[in-house]
Amino acid sequence: MRTPYADIALEDVDALLQRSMKAFHTYARQPLTTRAQLLRAMAVALEAGGDALIRTAMRETNLPEARLRGERSRTVFQLNSYAEACEQGEWLEVRIDHANAAKTPPKPDIRKMLVPLGPVLVYGASNFPFAYSTAGGDTACALAAGCSVVVKAHPAHPETSETVAAAIGQALAECGLPADLFLHVHGKAPEIGKALVTHPCTKAVGFTGSQLAGRTLFDWACARPEPIPVFAEMGSVNPVFLLPQKLEADATALAEMYAGSITLGVGQFCTNPGLLFAPEGQGLETFLAALTHAIQQMPGQRMLHPGIADSYAAHRSKALSQSGVLSLAIGIEGSDPGSGVPTIASVEARHFLENPLLHQEVFGPFSLVVRCRDVQEMLEACRRLEGQLTATVMGTEEELAQSQELLEAAAAIAGRIILNGVPTGVEVCQAMQHGGPYPACTDSRFTSVGADGIKRFARPQAYQNWPDALLPAALREANPLKIPRTVA
Amino acid sequence: MRTPYADIALEDVDALLQRSMKAFHTYARQPLTTRAQLLRAMAVALEAGGDALIRTAMRETNLPEARLRGERSRTVFQLNSYAEACEQGEWLEVRIDHANAAKTPPKPDIRKMLVPLGPVLVYGASNFPFAYSTAGGDTACALAAGCSVVVKAHPAHPETSETVAAAIGQALAECGLPADLFLHVHGKAPEIGKALVTHPCTKAVGFTGSQLAGRTLFDWACARPEPIPVFAEMGSVNPVFLLPQKLEADATALAEMYAGSITLGVGQFCTNPGLLFAPEGQGLETFLAALTHAIQQMPGQRMLHPGIADSYAAHRSKALSQSGVLSLAIGIEGSDPGSGVPTIASVEARHFLENPLLHQEVFGPFSLVVRCRDVQEMLEACRRLEGQLTATVMGTEEELAQSQELLEAAAAIAGRIILNGVPTGVEVCQAMQHGGPYPACTDSRFTSVGADGIKRFARPQAYQNWPDALLPAALREANPLKIPRTVA
Repeated sequence: MRTPYADIALEDVDALLQRSMKAFHTYARQPLTTRAQLLRAMAVALEAGGDALIRTAMRETNLPEARLRGERSRTVFQLNSYAEACEQGEWLEVRIDHANAAKTPPKPDIRKMLVPLGPVLVYGASNFPFAYSTAGGDTACALAAGCSVVVKAHPAHPETSETVAAAIGQALAECGLPADLFLHVHGKAPEIGKALVTHPCTKAVGFTGSQLAGRTLFDWACARPEPIPVFAEMGSVNPVFLLPQKLEADATALAEMYAGSITLGVGQFCTNPGLLFAPEGQGLETFLAALTHAIQQMPGQRMLHPGIADSYAAHRSKALSQSGVLSLAIGIEGSDPGSGVPTIASVEARHFLENPLLHQEVFGPFSLVVRCRDVQEMLEACRRLEGQLTATVMGTEEELAQSQELLEAAAAIAGRIILNGVPTGVEVCQAMQHGGPYPACTDSRFTSVGADGIKRFARPQAYQNWPDALLPAALREANPLKIPRTVA
Repeated sequence: MRTPYADIALEDVDALLQRSMKAFHTYARQPLTTRAQLLRAMAVALEAGGDALIRTAMRETNLPEARLRGERSRTVFQLNSYAEACEQGEWLEVRIDHANAAKTPPKPDIRKMLVPLGPVLVYGASNFPFAYSTAGGDTACALAAGCSVVVKAHPAHPETSETVAAAIGQALAECGLPADLFLHVHGKAPEIGKALVTHPCTKAVGFTGSQLAGRTLFDWACARPEPIPVFAEMGSVNPVFLLPQKLEADATALAEMYAGSITLGVGQFCTNPGLLFAPEGQGLETFLAALTHAIQQMPGQRMLHPGIADSYAAHRSKALSQSGVLSLAIGIEGSDPGSGVPTIASVEARHFLENPLLHQEVFGPFSLVVRCRDVQEMLEACRRLEGQLTATVMGTEEELAQSQELLEAAAAIAGRIILNGVPTGVEVCQAMQHGGPYPACTDSRFTSVGADGIKRFARPQAYQNWPDALLPAALREANPLKIPRTVA
């Protein structure tokens, strides 16, 4: 794809990150309220982008208007809710241990809180032009943590990214903060990505996208003389396990629910359910008949960009050509080569278990139904899966209560376990976990959704024997910021 | 050194880690109280090792009896305090978001808590045969997190490690827990370390030791098909900044305090102050005269093992031979080649700034005093240092209040900033941060001392739309474990 925006020149990367580091030092002195004020100003500026911003995003991403309006609202909500969390300060993990002169040796006064890592490099995501791109979750978390941000725009929506970056610039100006606190570049060439990730001033990376790209960034970051943390959320197949009683009882309703989840947003969600495991039986046949019926009536829709459509077509074909795989239902194909056509296939578990290719994500509206002999075989299949963002189990209350092993196996591989629901729809709230064992992401100990995501970009710092007046406000004895603290 | 304990055979590593994984699955079902019970039983078993255990450690490490008794007490305290933290449950970071059907789309019930990563590989540390070895902080944190543990004994104290491992085995039996929950091996050959780190069942690594070894483990872990987190604490030079008024006022007292800190435990602490920055002037001359006097009267003492003594001698010589470095004071040299002789040298800041070798740790009782023109040059030097576990500033209250830039520069490079104290002496308490920017450790976002160290070995897991009865106890609506939770 031809972008009208020029890549940053390799020789300019150093100056860019030096500027980001300088702005970071200024920003690090600002109180939490200023950080929150910035996030709120960004939310306002994003909304002020109005219809024009939505139209730009529609043109660049092929996503429908309602979806983009919803995503912008979500992004505005994210900014405001992280602003609130930032001020509220629980994420600072303040611990206070008072001195105790009676101990041998005497115990000094020690206080601890999280402090920002430094400049954070954020990669825009193709499938969330607002919520996981320029002013998205990673940017919001980094700014809340007290870090400066350099965004590398996703090349599939450069103008949307530029427009949002300009809105952020306006918010910075309104808050009297340095313009360099948020820097925005284009860089389609891999050597630019490498220069950004490996620059000594870069202190962390946030990424949402493919396994290949995420792992590349991770490898660059780990090979640095000074390794830095990378939170790369790389999607997953999000297995769903259908237990027999539930399937018997609700086959048609489940099929409709899943037809919707599989095709939502042309399947371009990292929580799209790509694998459905079910035991053979009448319930499964009814479910498949209803799912087939629903999918066959759904038209293909244009995907985010031609590269993703090509990749979907290729991976879908490859999956369909595997031994034992039967095509069950294909949506209405149009003439647009950029479209992704909803597709359901099935395979017996014995074929699935011996073919790792079928365990891989096909990014788009594709799901594979794995026919299992019984629940035991479903359990076996679950234990063979790689790390996932989510795992879902559908069952009656009675059979869930009898499925401890399956629930444990699902928990072992996933960051979030959903019962009787769909994995799509990632609520922005503090209890959300968006991440999971590799290859779902590069560090399962963090999340990219919810205010706990701020902690990806901060480190604990202990202050020993400091006079009260010199301590950061969050640590002062009188607790002037009124934040929750653990005191001993 | 010849160890009477055989290395594990390479072909046995797979079975070892399979056993650890199996025990992990059993342990993961146990309540927090069982984990705490195990840690407490370990503390009792360690104390039951009595004088015999201390004598074994004395013979293997050359550390004096009082130090080893103190270290064992510290280890017992650690086990008991992490047991308490484990039960208390704040570290689980429970978040509860209740359902809200009125929202569009309806918000589901989501609850989150930390769950264990899986088998953790712990490397014993040579300089802490109890507190950072077999039953040390990493092992205690991993078990508190709900992980199984495989310890690779440090080859310098194999018998101490075996004895402690046997005590842990006894504690496991008393608690009715599987023996494989804690496994203990010897493995001097690097290929064994590599096999342990890269085995698919290994899910995290804890290490305390040299930069070279820590970075090797980190590189192995990052290059795995499934990368795993490594917390490697690799020591540091722990810079100390002496401000002029304080130096003028207290030169002699400061010199005595630092003579003690520099030589404590033959300088074999990762928080040993290896660099002292001070402005030229009468205060510095008085300080140096007193420091020289104190150091010259201190005899060399036998170091942990011949390899460390050789390394100390080599690094000390190399530092002393650098351009502009003057030897100031050398302690009393004996005939024992295994000894480390206390040594103080000085250098002008201009030489220091241009010679990175002088920024490196000399592990042992060696400190370099960097003569600075003024406080501005001290600040410049601070900004050129690598990541550190600690940084210390000595100053009057008045000059500390005027030293914002220096305090910020110190904070930017260190995990813990001490005012008017010494960096040696790492209190075991929740506010402690033991870790810091690379190369002090491989992930500055975690600590290896204090109960927050448990979080190195756990990941958040979200439970969406679960019936109350099926939820882990920590997440049930009635809060039966009475743990602190964030509820919305």
